[in-house]
Amino acid sequence: VSPRPPRLSDDELAAALPALAAWTHADGRLHRRIERPSFVEAFALMTSIALVAERLDHHPDWSNAWNVVEITLTTHSAGGLTALDLELARRIDELAG
Amino acid sequence: VSPRPPRLSDDELAAALPALAAWTHADGRLHRRIERPSFVEAFALMTSIALVAERLDHHPDWSNAWNVVEITLTTHSAGGLTALDLELARRIDELAG
Repeated sequence: VSPRPPRLSDDELAAALPALAAWTHADGRLHRRIERPSFVEAFALMTSIALVAERLDHHPDWSNAWNVVEITLTTHSAGGLTALDLELARRIDELAG
Repeated sequence: VSPRPPRLSDDELAAALPALAAWTHADGRLHRRIERPSFVEAFALMTSIALVAERLDHHPDWSNAWNVVEITLTTHSAGGLTALDLELARRIDELAG
């Protein structure tokens, strides 16, 4: 297990957030809601995100109700957002298309 | 798609709930929290539940945070619990061991 990255500074966050336009940022967390045509497609997306999250050793807090996936990213050990959250958000954006 | 079953009567619920001891019942919903040793094992369980849910054409409202899966069952179209929720709860119990 690699050491956890430090919490991002306000300047670092301000520089990174414009590229993550699908995410809302509040209280040290990133949040994105993704809708798919069906449960099968929503859970297929979750499966691909799960593999990426495990590879990064950084996992989302998330929920699913039929065709909707709600994703919250934060680094609990850092008490806020780190480079890991930005990386996972970018990878989720790629997977979600 | 088969017709949705009707909401269970209080008597039907009272007869069914003792066999679902891992679930709490409130406000027309069943809830179970399942903890696993890791994210991999938690998500593996979710994957097996997803396949069963799709087969039943009845899906959970659920969330995951690392090794914890929280599951809520209800039948939105019936405004409460139906035989489908009982069946899905039983299948989840089998999968969760």
